[in-house]
Amino acid sequence: MDVKSILESFKKGELSADEAEKLLRMDYIDSIGDSVLFDSSRHLRTGIPEVVYANSKKPETVLEIVRKRDSGILLISKAKDEHLDLLEKGIPEIRIFRECGMAVKGEFPEKKKGRIGIITAGTSDIPIAMEAKLMAEAMGIECITFFDIGVAGLHRILEPMQKLIESHVSAIVVVAGMEGALPTVVSSLSPVPVIGVPTSTGYGYGGNGECALMSMLQSCSPGLSVVNIDNGIGAGATAALIAGNRSDVP
Amino acid sequence: MDVKSILESFKKGELSADEAEKLLRMDYIDSIGDSVLFDSSRHLRTGIPEVVYANSKKPETVLEIVRKRDSGILLISKAKDEHLDLLEKGIPEIRIFRECGMAVKGEFPEKKKGRIGIITAGTSDIPIAMEAKLMAEAMGIECITFFDIGVAGLHRILEPMQKLIESHVSAIVVVAGMEGALPTVVSSLSPVPVIGVPTSTGYGYGGNGECALMSMLQSCSPGLSVVNIDNGIGAGATAALIAGNRSDVP
Amino acid sequence: MDVKSILESFKKGELSADEAEKLLRMDYIDSIGDSVLFDSSRHLRTGIPEVVYANSKKPETVLEIVRKRDSGILLISKAKDEHLDLLEKGIPEIRIFRECGMAVKGEFPEKKKGRIGIITAGTSDIPIAMEAKLMAEAMGIECITFFDIGVAGLHRILEPMQKLIESHVSAIVVVAGMEGALPTVVSSLSPVPVIGVPTSTGYGYGGNGECALMSMLQSCSPGLSVVNIDNGIGAGATAALIAGNRSDVP
Amino acid sequence: MDVKSILESFKKGELSADEAEKLLRMDYIDSIGDSVLFDSSRHLRTGIPEVVYANSKKPETVLEIVRKRDSGILLISKAKDEHLDLLEKGIPEIRIFRECGMAVKGEFPEKKKGRIGIITAGTSDIPIAMEAKLMAEAMGIECITFFDIGVAGLHRILEPMQKLIESHVSAIVVVAGMEGALPTVVSSLSPVPVIGVPTSTGYGYGGNGECALMSMLQSCSPGLSVVNIDNGIGAGATAALIAGNRSDVP
Amino acid sequence: MDVKSILESFKKGELSADEAEKLLRMDYIDSIGDSVLFDSSRHLRTGIPEVVYANSKKPETVLEIVRKRDSGILLISKAKDEHLDLLEKGIPEIRIFRECGMAVKGEFPEKKKGRIGIITAGTSDIPIAMEAKLMAEAMGIECITFFDIGVAGLHRILEPMQKLIESHVSAIVVVAGMEGALPTVVSSLSPVPVIGVPTSTGYGYGGNGECALMSMLQSCSPGLSVVNIDNGIGAGATAALIAGNRSDVP
Amino acid sequence: MDVKSILESFKKGELSADEAEKLLRMDYIDSIGDSVLFDSSRHLRTGIPEVVYANSKKPETVLEIVRKRDSGILLISKAKDEHLDLLEKGIPEIRIFRECGMAVKGEFPEKKKGRIGIITAGTSDIPIAMEAKLMAEAMGIECITFFDIGVAGLHRILEPMQKLIESHVSAIVVVAGMEGALPTVVSSLSPVPVIGVPTSTGYGYGGNGECALMSMLQSCSPGLSVVNIDNGIGAGATAALIAGNRSDVP
Amino acid sequence: MDVKSILESFKKGELSADEAEKLLRMDYIDSIGDSVLFDSSRHLRTGIPEVVYANSKKPETVLEIVRKRDSGILLISKAKDEHLDLLEKGIPEIRIFRECGMAVKGEFPEKKKGRIGIITAGTSDIPIAMEAKLMAEAMGIECITFFDIGVAGLHRILEPMQKLIESHVSAIVVVAGMEGALPTVVSSLSPVPVIGVPTSTGYGYGGNGECALMSMLQSCSPGLSVVNIDNGIGAGATAALIAGNRSDVP
Amino acid sequence: MDVKSILESFKKGELSADEAEKLLRMDYIDSIGDSVLFDSSRHLRTGIPEVVYANSKKPETVLEIVRKRDSGILLISKAKDEHLDLLEKGIPEIRIFRECGMAVKGEFPEKKKGRIGIITAGTSDIPIAMEAKLMAEAMGIECITFFDIGVAGLHRILEPMQKLIESHVSAIVVVAGMEGALPTVVSSLSPVPVIGVPTSTGYGYGGNGECALMSMLQSCSPGLSVVNIDNGIGAGATAALIAGNRSDVP
Repeated sequence: MDVKSILESFKKGELSADEAEKLLRMDYIDSIGDSVLFDSSRHLRTGIPEVVYANSKKPETVLEIVRKRDSGILLISKAKDEHLDLLEKGIPEIRIFRECGMAVKGEFPEKKKGRIGIITAGTSDIPIAMEAKLMAEAMGIECITFFDIGVAGLHRILEPMQKLIESHVSAIVVVAGMEGALPTVVSSLSPVPVIGVPTSTGYGYGGNGECALMSMLQSCSPGLSVVNIDNGIGAGATAALIAGNRSDVP
Repeated sequence: MDVKSILESFKKGELSADEAEKLLRMDYIDSIGDSVLFDSSRHLRTGIPEVVYANSKKPETVLEIVRKRDSGILLISKAKDEHLDLLEKGIPEIRIFRECGMAVKGEFPEKKKGRIGIITAGTSDIPIAMEAKLMAEAMGIECITFFDIGVAGLHRILEPMQKLIESHVSAIVVVAGMEGALPTVVSSLSPVPVIGVPTSTGYGYGGNGECALMSMLQSCSPGLSVVNIDNGIGAGATAALIAGNRSDVP
Repeated sequence: MDVKSILESFKKGELSADEAEKLLRMDYIDSIGDSVLFDSSRHLRTGIPEVVYANSKKPETVLEIVRKRDSGILLISKAKDEHLDLLEKGIPEIRIFRECGMAVKGEFPEKKKGRIGIITAGTSDIPIAMEAKLMAEAMGIECITFFDIGVAGLHRILEPMQKLIESHVSAIVVVAGMEGALPTVVSSLSPVPVIGVPTSTGYGYGGNGECALMSMLQSCSPGLSVVNIDNGIGAGATAALIAGNRSDVP
Repeated sequence: MDVKSILESFKKGELSADEAEKLLRMDYIDSIGDSVLFDSSRHLRTGIPEVVYANSKKPETVLEIVRKRDSGILLISKAKDEHLDLLEKGIPEIRIFRECGMAVKGEFPEKKKGRIGIITAGTSDIPIAMEAKLMAEAMGIECITFFDIGVAGLHRILEPMQKLIESHVSAIVVVAGMEGALPTVVSSLSPVPVIGVPTSTGYGYGGNGECALMSMLQSCSPGLSVVNIDNGIGAGATAALIAGNRSDVP
Repeated sequence: MDVKSILESFKKGELSADEAEKLLRMDYIDSIGDSVLFDSSRHLRTGIPEVVYANSKKPETVLEIVRKRDSGILLISKAKDEHLDLLEKGIPEIRIFRECGMAVKGEFPEKKKGRIGIITAGTSDIPIAMEAKLMAEAMGIECITFFDIGVAGLHRILEPMQKLIESHVSAIVVVAGMEGALPTVVSSLSPVPVIGVPTSTGYGYGGNGECALMSMLQSCSPGLSVVNIDNGIGAGATAALIAGNRSDVP
Repeated sequence: MDVKSILESFKKGELSADEAEKLLRMDYIDSIGDSVLFDSSRHLRTGIPEVVYANSKKPETVLEIVRKRDSGILLISKAKDEHLDLLEKGIPEIRIFRECGMAVKGEFPEKKKGRIGIITAGTSDIPIAMEAKLMAEAMGIECITFFDIGVAGLHRILEPMQKLIESHVSAIVVVAGMEGALPTVVSSLSPVPVIGVPTSTGYGYGGNGECALMSMLQSCSPGLSVVNIDNGIGAGATAALIAGNRSDVP
Repeated sequence: MDVKSILESFKKGELSADEAEKLLRMDYIDSIGDSVLFDSSRHLRTGIPEVVYANSKKPETVLEIVRKRDSGILLISKAKDEHLDLLEKGIPEIRIFRECGMAVKGEFPEKKKGRIGIITAGTSDIPIAMEAKLMAEAMGIECITFFDIGVAGLHRILEPMQKLIESHVSAIVVVAGMEGALPTVVSSLSPVPVIGVPTSTGYGYGGNGECALMSMLQSCSPGLSVVNIDNGIGAGATAALIAGNRSDVP
Repeated sequence: MDVKSILESFKKGELSADEAEKLLRMDYIDSIGDSVLFDSSRHLRTGIPEVVYANSKKPETVLEIVRKRDSGILLISKAKDEHLDLLEKGIPEIRIFRECGMAVKGEFPEKKKGRIGIITAGTSDIPIAMEAKLMAEAMGIECITFFDIGVAGLHRILEPMQKLIESHVSAIVVVAGMEGALPTVVSSLSPVPVIGVPTSTGYGYGGNGECALMSMLQSCSPGLSVVNIDNGIGAGATAALIAGNRSDVP
């Protein structure tokens, strides 16, 4: 029962003033968050899909959550083989991406105009880059990827950068572990914002992504911002949000 | 002497093959970085101005650097009073912004179409927000600011958010110290990407910006990325880069 | 032999002054800690039961400890399956709570008047919330629980809060991992004290409960206090202590 | 114009359905946070006064904030001499507490029934204990204080504990730096909840409150919860909230 | 009134059973800590004097504490010039040791048989070594000192070691900052226990005593134990306690 | 050939001056470390046996090392079951102590006069206490042990302390994890030096021995020194060194 | 087509000015990184071979990478048994070094004149020393090794040092865990530069290589530089680079 | 009296066997460290001068140390103005280098054949580079310096690198703060070893040199080793040691 109906019923005397106020309050409570404050339509406007973080949940719990969800697109991330095995058995139509511990329920939306680039420094960074890619594609954004562009062969970044710029990407996700220098270099070459994703590779002092995160934050390159270690999902969402708003790219 | 001129002079016999090659090599060395690799024209295309980090330099050194620079726009950041005093005396046309420890030489460019929002959680976060604002304005981007929208009065964010969305901002910079929750909340309400700037306020465990940085990175809100503690300049540049590429906003 | 009996025996001449003093001294040593200093009757007055921390003990050791205890209520926490398996076999009357790694020997006491609320941010926080619930119930306190009230759907906290307030809870335990913002939000809504429990979820910088703990401590919300990461037992005891002293709730 | 008035005007035809809905929406937006979600009446019900954290603000800013506030009670905390000097000059009726860097505007409320205890381990912890005391008194709660009850003379805690228990305190705030063992000892003796406040005393490994905070969190004593290092205000508010709800103490 | 007097008065009828019990209980409470538990006579038996940690106290407070104390020996440590100046003025008989920020009230006791050695790695470590020396002398222990025996000239330790061994020291305090290797070397040469004191010298990674503390703890040399960074007092007390118990040295 | 023989042979003309000098130099090089500098006779005088740290070595390597050693006493510590299994098979006379991951080759020496006390806070600390005990016994020192004297039942320490003091122990090893308060309490009661051993129990902030180590170092109790986390061997050696030098105990 | 050929063709009219410029630009882009900037001929001149870090890669990926490489020498490091097993099966000519988790494809180059020394403190450090040895040998450098020269027997370093100096080594790699003191001692004895390699041995505070790294950096010994924890490869390369440039050693 | 003289005197009967042995032993003790073990002639062979670390010493102490030293070359580092002022007054011939807080007593030695390069990333790194330069020059090594070659203008390193390589430098010191990427880039371009010096510039997470140190250690570039934050002296000594041994450079 919406506001106008309540008003009408009240006018017609079908509702007392008290009853009308109570109903309006109920509508009010329902609406908080749903329509104004917490913007439940955010998904509709921005297309950021819901993501289930599987790692700290039991496979059965994840299966149950995924089963309940019957419309729209749903991503499952940081899933172990035991999660994926159960999902594969239980939900025939689900798509499994074992190389990055993910699963996707529902179809990807139509492609929007915007595009993003995704670059990794090494082979070990590819699973996190795949997270970013799936998230962005789930938001209707095309991804142009260049994997294994290490900083050791810094010159190898020239060609990818030219291709990305020619492709009119609106943002570039750069995934790197170890000393994490690649996002800074890419950012210094890029006319579009760069989102750095530190990965938990490397050992010794500064290993497990700490040095990579620190370097990206400490870097003086304006135009570079960062998400948490191994958070490919977040980087993909941010880049896709930048690209998804663009109607002015060819 | 550019490539074509060299070729012509060589054809005319004014240059020997050796001389021509040597000149081409020189052009080649000059060009590295300048035109291709390190993209010296980045500034021209993106409008990110050069920034002098004054804090670890002597006032005299900063003055000298600023004097040398005779075209374009130049920002001086994290300047102490002694830096600003000397600059004020030495360079009459410089504009001083004491409230955020900055100075600007040169005129701001014409305004582009894009706009950004800048929000602070508390009064103490305003100087860092001012850094972001000056950087963005130096890139031709209009800033709509809402200061002192603390998380304590979370509801106070409703109206600013509506105004920012109605103003078609392309990105929102959120500056917050202490527990740093505001960027997460703004991000959950925002259809555009949010750049969080942790500030070095707060005391005890997690003080000096550590908790704020950690919360922003740990937050699960997709669409939120982060710059280093107190790096208003970086956040302003990232947001302005997102906005500056937009030709499709009203 | 208590003080008066000693005095009487001394008066009657059954004890010499030396013997009387010696007996009084023995009573004295017995009493230290037992009746005055270390308050062995604390359990009786407050009803905080003894808790065996199983995790760093061998299953056999835990079984032996539990067997020895033949009166009152005893909780076993942070138990692995191997502990619970052995306890289940060895002590038929024990109650096993596998979902939170706990076991309980003895009956819960009669319910007191006081009540507490327990809220979790996510599914992964439920086992720690169960610790708090069992501890509080073992102290005679009724628990009203709302699980999986994530900060992402901040508006979902409205209804639980109203129900908790209407139920006259005397304290609210809030269990949260990741960025740990929920206790701050609950505290800002709550007329009763809130006890935050950070949980060791989350990955990357600030993972394993560090960010959650830091946020709760850094938060400026008065009325919020904190226990250690994953210490559901401690939070349950604190909340139950607050509630258990209340005789003025309906 | 409240909901009922709107309904009445609508019924009388003074408002169209659209106008009525619009007014209801406006009421709705006004109310969010103010009456339901963010509970602006929390202060009224709980009596937690607003606190201005002076340390990171300029004296002039603090003066301005305090001047604006013209009703109710307002606390200023972590103020330096320069803050207090200006406040003293500018606001004649303000009360200055230099020993703990605080100022209070407005009168303390009538005393409630509840009482709390405040104990410090050493002389250096007294300013933080004073913060807790002023906060609690500003919430109408009487404080019984015992300062300088160091753990070195552990036996010196016997008498204070007996007096606190006889005084029917509802909670005890324990302020301690260095190795921070006192709250654990007090908690093991106390039938009421204990709130530990680590202070930034001590030097070397674990100095500046880190060891004190860690010990309080690591302690296995159920019934002990903790606030951030040097956060006397938060501890006072939590203890006063526990005590303030009690109508059943003599 | 001691236990026997109470018993006698009771027998004589001067006290009722109730009065006698009450008096015995009072004696009991007085005694706790004083004679049994907390061993107030520890000082008498071990000769460890009380130490006032001046650093976090106001000069006036320190003066007041020192004045109150009218018997026995009292040490003031980590005192700044302002503390020492006031003490010098206010208490004519006090002895001031500015080079290590200490003051001593009262006479040193007669020398016991035991002796200890104190060695420093560098010049900067001497003030902390002086703390240890004064503490040990205040416990009646003679100290044989060798300052500035750096690890750089490792061979320079040969002679001091021979002299210490020939002097029958019962323990050796070794004070070292930077990489803190000296205590390990001394320990490997020493037939008596070594107490390492890390000092807060050094800069960069591991500076401020962190590396020194870590090295001493990580060292595999059996017979080496450690006190906190800059805690010369604690090391002196430990060494003096070892030496003070010895009646079997020449 | 010793110095005197060389001199004699030289005098007799059996050696030229050059040959004599060369032989003296050889003796000299042999002696460095062996007899003077590095005190290879330390073991003989102090009785500290060699310890093989098994944890980071392969079982085969440990077996080989132990086999080579054919005289004196040899301890193997931090051994896993696979190490102990192989040692048990390969060296029939070895004694295995599985409860603390140790093995001992060779006979313990005759008991000296000195004695030490060993106390643990909890059950989980017993293996580390056993390390200390075996090390001390391997140095001829009798150990009086009290296990599971937790700080929770602080009064339970009264009786053990009295027994230790009556037994004339020369030092007390106190093993504790979690918040690590027991060594401080024991030290405040003890007329002899206390060596604290933090253990890697506890979870959350300050877990794994960090809080215990910090508390012991931060504690202001003079007479308490500390070894590294879980280093029972080091504590046992230090305590035994203190006790082993005593000829004046009954 | 090189620069001169392009010039000639242009002169002959076989190329237009535009075509010539385009070809020159292509040469230019090809050259960047390849011949000038990123020095792809570094390997040729310095002989530092490529190293594949296996640990974070799947065995199949490593096999594929190694197979593709068909000339020169290739090292595989930090390989687990599963990597080595697959490499052994798939590439018959590969040499496997299980003791240090490495494999080598291709022949070692001819020995250069330069030599280096490699020393380890303990048995556990040998695998990391083997990494350094294989890397150096792959660069044509002979290695003289002394393993298990612990700091405990500091005098045992005399003879190795004399042999290394007599062998005219140009640099010494010193591998040490625990407290990491050996490189400092070696450096103080060495006329050539020392490269310290901390290893991840040791437990408790400062374990896992942290203390070793810190000590080596904090050490004041000039001539000592450091690589990351467990980075034997890096140390071997640095030492071999120093030695490989030497043509002046016998 | 040297060994041969002793032998002669003994042969002549001027010395008894006992006296001869005693004298030989004294020679023996004198020699330890001086001629064999601790290599006091290291300075002579390697030319590493002694360095007085002024920062933690009083000006008067530094003056006294410098005065005592009457031959050879002596460096004073990390000196404040108050140190330099006193040295300037007290020792007329001393050379003061205020820009890097150093002073030099004695003349630099003759130049050796070897040369090194020194590069800084920014202006703020110059004082630390000057430390390296003075140290190297004090060892007779010529330094070719390029200051302010920031990573932002990465291409600006091309020309300096070419010049350094053409100058046949034997090692390159690279000084950098912030994210510390420059040493990695230089190392990837360099045929000679690179020594990285992190500097304590930068703010926020990873500031004060932590990120720079971490990046240099985490970097995978073989041939790069590192000294502690701000340790220009150590880097200069290491580089000069590499260069000083070279007799094969033009």
